[in-house]
Amino acid sequence: MTIPLKDSSDPSAKAALARLEQIKGQLNLKSSAMSLQAPKDMTTERAAADFDIKKLEWLWAGGEDAYNLLNFSYNFIKNDPELVVQPPRNFLEMSRPEAREFAMGQIYRTTQLSKDKALNLTKQQIDSIVWATNIYSETFSMRFFVHASLFRNAVNMLGNKNQQDKWNTKIENLEVIGCFAMTELGHSSALRDIETTATYDIATDEFVLESPTVTSSKWWIGMAGQTATHTVAIAQTIIHGKNVGLNWFIVQLRSQTDGSLMPNVVAGDIGQKVGHLGLDNGWIQFHRNRIPRKNMLSRWVSLDRHGNFSPPPNPAVMYATLIPERLSLVLVTTQLISQAIVIATRYGVVRRQGAKNEQIMDYQSHYVKLVPAISFMYMVKTAQKDLDEQFSILTAGGNMDPATYLNYMGEMHAMAACFKGLTGWYSSEILEDCRRACGGHAYSSYNAIGSIIGDWGVMTTGGGDNVVLLQQAARHLLFRLEQKLKFNQYPKFSFKSPTQYINYAEEYLGNTKWNVSDVSQCLGNFSVVEGALCTILVKRLNSIQKNLESGMTHNDVLLESVRVAEMHCAVFLFSTNAAAYHKSTADPALDKGVLSIMNRLTVLWGLHILYKYSDQGFKEGFLSPEQIKDIEYIYFDYCKSLRSQVIGLTDGFGYPDFIIKAPIAKYDGDIYQAYFDSILQAPGSVDIPPYHEKYIKPLTNQLK
Amino acid sequence: MTIPLKDSSDPSAKAALARLEQIKGQLNLKSSAMSLQAPKDMTTERAAADFDIKKLEWLWAGGEDAYNLLNFSYNFIKNDPELVVQPPRNFLEMSRPEAREFAMGQIYRTTQLSKDKALNLTKQQIDSIVWATNIYSETFSMRFFVHASLFRNAVNMLGNKNQQDKWNTKIENLEVIGCFAMTELGHSSALRDIETTATYDIATDEFVLESPTVTSSKWWIGMAGQTATHTVAIAQTIIHGKNVGLNWFIVQLRSQTDGSLMPNVVAGDIGQKVGHLGLDNGWIQFHRNRIPRKNMLSRWVSLDRHGNFSPPPNPAVMYATLIPERLSLVLVTTQLISQAIVIATRYGVVRRQGAKNEQIMDYQSHYVKLVPAISFMYMVKTAQKDLDEQFSILTAGGNMDPATYLNYMGEMHAMAACFKGLTGWYSSEILEDCRRACGGHAYSSYNAIGSIIGDWGVMTTGGGDNVVLLQQAARHLLFRLEQKLKFNQYPKFSFKSPTQYINYAEEYLGNTKWNVSDVSQCLGNFSVVEGALCTILVKRLNSIQKNLESGMTHNDVLLESVRVAEMHCAVFLFSTNAAAYHKSTADPALDKGVLSIMNRLTVLWGLHILYKYSDQGFKEGFLSPEQIKDIEYIYFDYCKSLRSQVIGLTDGFGYPDFIIKAPIAKYDGDIYQAYFDSILQAPGSVDIPPYHEKYIKPLTNQLK
Repeated sequence: MTIPLKDSSDPSAKAALARLEQIKGQLNLKSSAMSLQAPKDMTTERAAADFDIKKLEWLWAGGEDAYNLLNFSYNFIKNDPELVVQPPRNFLEMSRPEAREFAMGQIYRTTQLSKDKALNLTKQQIDSIVWATNIYSETFSMRFFVHASLFRNAVNMLGNKNQQDKWNTKIENLEVIGCFAMTELGHSSALRDIETTATYDIATDEFVLESPTVTSSKWWIGMAGQTATHTVAIAQTIIHGKNVGLNWFIVQLRSQTDGSLMPNVVAGDIGQKVGHLGLDNGWIQFHRNRIPRKNMLSRWVSLDRHGNFSPPPNPAVMYATLIPERLSLVLVTTQLISQAIVIATRYGVVRRQGAKNEQIMDYQSHYVKLVPAISFMYMVKTAQKDLDEQFSILTAGGNMDPATYLNYMGEMHAMAACFKGLTGWYSSEILEDCRRACGGHAYSSYNAIGSIIGDWGVMTTGGGDNVVLLQQAARHLLFRLEQKLKFNQYPKFSFKSPTQYINYAEEYLGNTKWNVSDVSQCLGNFSVVEGALCTILVKRLNSIQKNLESGMTHNDVLLESVRVAEMHCAVFLFSTNAAAYHKSTADPALDKGVLSIMNRLTVLWGLHILYKYSDQGFKEGFLSPEQIKDIEYIYFDYCKSLRSQVIGLTDGFGYPDFIIKAPIAKYDGDIYQAYFDSILQAPGSVDIPPYHEKYIKPLTNQLK
Repeated sequence: MTIPLKDSSDPSAKAALARLEQIKGQLNLKSSAMSLQAPKDMTTERAAADFDIKKLEWLWAGGEDAYNLLNFSYNFIKNDPELVVQPPRNFLEMSRPEAREFAMGQIYRTTQLSKDKALNLTKQQIDSIVWATNIYSETFSMRFFVHASLFRNAVNMLGNKNQQDKWNTKIENLEVIGCFAMTELGHSSALRDIETTATYDIATDEFVLESPTVTSSKWWIGMAGQTATHTVAIAQTIIHGKNVGLNWFIVQLRSQTDGSLMPNVVAGDIGQKVGHLGLDNGWIQFHRNRIPRKNMLSRWVSLDRHGNFSPPPNPAVMYATLIPERLSLVLVTTQLISQAIVIATRYGVVRRQGAKNEQIMDYQSHYVKLVPAISFMYMVKTAQKDLDEQFSILTAGGNMDPATYLNYMGEMHAMAACFKGLTGWYSSEILEDCRRACGGHAYSSYNAIGSIIGDWGVMTTGGGDNVVLLQQAARHLLFRLEQKLKFNQYPKFSFKSPTQYINYAEEYLGNTKWNVSDVSQCLGNFSVVEGALCTILVKRLNSIQKNLESGMTHNDVLLESVRVAEMHCAVFLFSTNAAAYHKSTADPALDKGVLSIMNRLTVLWGLHILYKYSDQGFKEGFLSPEQIKDIEYIYFDYCKSLRSQVIGLTDGFGYPDFIIKAPIAKYDGDIYQAYFDSILQAPGSVDIPPYHEKYIKPLTNQLK
């Protein structure tokens, strides 16, 4: 295989550039009124921002220093041919083998940065370069994440001190490349049914790993296809002939020297996928594969030489790694979906179409989709920070008393589950809206939205099926409500828990009708909105609870439960941002312009939820038809009021053009020639096809 | 380029098969309880059909003879290596160059069938083989459609008798390969703004075609990338220095001998797209390109030697080809989306997961998505037939009086527009639901859903942006309502017009509340449902009309209008099927079991619309919270009652496994080994990757 992805100084790239110029010489690339207007529109839109865009970029990046560091990294990777595909080659044109090689090359390159003394990079800078490369390539991000996060977290959250000491250095310098083998061909959401076994052989003090059937094959395992030398694998643990439950084991898959499979391991590549072409997902089978006893991860369990096994204090701790995994997937929302929003937004302001040659962004069908999507990105960003802090309380919780720990754990698990569920689904909707907002041009791979959609596809089922996650969250909410209403119990938390409103359930249940005659009160008052939303939530939960008590099954109320869990998470985003961006409670150091726009985005988000879940309020008889019409009117109108801010707000994400990749979303708005260029760079774009002689000429030339 | 897609008797295919067997020898492919249960479940599900599946297949195919003919064709193409990719190669693994060559090879092969006397095929059989190949490959379908439908329809609907005579034979035998050049880089929905010009040069009796700017480049043109020798192109027509409007011109693009571009034409390939890899979409520029006057399509216009131009009787006739184009896109729904539904449904009944090892189809989140999707396919199939008949009245309408013709045209245009809009969007939703219903396994390209989604992507913006189309339909509805309410005018049609309910607008407006206390009345009575739906439609249209009269702009009510137009189309589907499958009005020859299941699907569709658009009813104060809750309950419950029929219903589409392609959707339910096989067949699936030496070994072997 030839890898046509080198820097532009190599001869084949030079030849490609020369060919491109020659084709362009034959074309009429003269500007039109339309193409001249586009950059002017972009400039006008940018100038319309009611805030200092730079300061919003700081907020998004996590502060001025973080912003500067990230921009240093963007500049660093931009011209590095091993981290970023250099023109005239196109990242969006890679085949599977090319993408896999390039992604591994990126990983390799990041490991070499510290060794190149001439570069003189700090550890912080190198981490930031990795982060910038994550943002550039979701495939790199996922591949790096499998090793540096999934594998490493398993060792550190589930392994004991000795195991951590043994493996952490090897993980750090990639002497081992690790993956995370949980899912099997026949088993994903139902971990209980995992078929792989690890049987303790007391004679040799080893575990024997076995894949007993076709459906027990580990499946989808990232990096297992071509790369990983080691894995953590979950398996049914058999000791003295008895199944003591699921445990995690470190297993070597491939030789660290020549990459060949270890004896008694068979593994391979999963082949073509809808996205993540550069990630080598794979499958694994173990056949009487022997590993030492000490390879069983033993922070929470233990097994001595005589086969005495102590189970974990709570089985849930064995899956605790899933919480940071889900929070990471939420983080991907802000780094990936935001890019699609930039593309649709920028194209939307420079594209003009219609009777009065309108900017397409001026159509209601456009801004009522994109403005809430932009708001969602900022809402998620704030909430994600909050949850990270809460999670750090949990991980520091080794010394908590067990009851408190499990209460925290329950809250975190439910919140991570519904956060991943809501962001997964709403992001899919946003991507579809972005795709449609770009019209036909989203169908070109070179405008990047297709690749984002492909990469995103895995998110609504991977890392926990969203229906299952949201149902788990709903059950947690129903449990909290039942505890409150029946036993007047609600735990004390040291932070603002996402379920806190349930502590006031009786009060909310007492609200028969929404006592707001002028819905525009929602514009100035977060507590009016929050009151309505929490009332609807509690009433809905209570109705579901009653249905269950009257004999309906959990399955009968599944769709209702899932919808309420979604809404719960949407309200959590609102509450978190309302606290962060209310004038009276916001960080006093926050720039006034930024505070003001974040406040407006929060108002919009509140209206968005009221609108989107108004059926929930109507079903409960809480909202009247008039109120529902008013909510719609005010929501649409508030979207319109933020229409002028869309460029400033999406500039706030701070992405350079090479990260976004799409020519129709160029920062300067000068899109048409750039788009044509990307098309002309496609291999063979103006050649007679190789099949002409065989299939075309015999037809078109038949009578001559 | 090597094309690795030959029949299984060639040596490289044999080697691949041998390699595959060797790998399988190392694997444990023993059955598990799960893999053994799957085919048993499939058999049980199939036996549960309340009707004769074969007879439903006849209905879907258009009768027993049509069914037999299509099955003959499926059997014919199945083993033809030029029409269907043969194992171990995989249709879903092709690169862009491979896919483009294969699709043109398919076209070539279909032209040779009549020449091969040994095959002894009738014209009808050959047409059916083309049709079966369409169903096998959406790329082939689209590529064939561009020439045989878009190009040919333009010549026949817009060209005069001489032009038809001149071109039809060449089109028939593919001596010319035609395409359809409408869209430009800068212009799609707004045809008025097309920039390409055709200037009449009276001195030479020629038109001079010109692409004056970058944005005037014809863009996305199917088959223009590599294949087409000719195109019809729309251009601003300049005669004696005056723009006389848009006209269509036949222009040669490439030499029929060697495929090289004609002088004064530059064209090329649009490169990588989200789907339709085998379709060579392209761009075209004309540079002082001279064509004879007689190449202007002149059925409705004329231009004499002196430059005297007669415009069309109505500008709309110049776009009449868009109506059959849109109806064709609706047809694609039934042939493509139905395949995704088969995949999700079959996988849903054989996959078991959960506390009680449930079939995942038994989850409410599953069947409430898939049962309505299945119903939708059958509803569309019936309505599409109806509209085809109506369209044939229109095309036969050369002798109609102009007022009648334009009334028909208005109805057809509005109906085709909103039908394409509704099916486009609802199908996208269905695909997303199908994808999610397959969990992670939809992420494997080999399970086909990804490819269907990729191909489908173009449908919500191509062939008319859905927002624009639905808005056009809404304006037509508002116009009819205004005519009725203000002037008591409604046209007489010789068929049941989709807008007929507007003729009873006053009556519907008089219904203040839905006078149905027991919503289960909807189960037995189509007219109860139709009455409610039409009331809601008329009330919503009337409210929008009032908002417009009170000063709101069309843009202010855009999203509302679009939603009402969607609902209008959904109700049209209901009415059409209610007439076809009501015991008192159905074709008496219809099999009783088939009639019964079609009746139940129609009941379900009515409930689906009531549920989905219930917000429209409560906004109008027509539906109460109690009624809304009852509708939801009865709708979910009716979905559940059809849950047992899903295999019979999807078998009704009659697709053989090689058409469906997805191993997780095998007819016999024995999915796991087949799925593993498809993975193992991926090139290099168990090889050490070529980049091991370069990127992996230096890391993993660093300390040795």
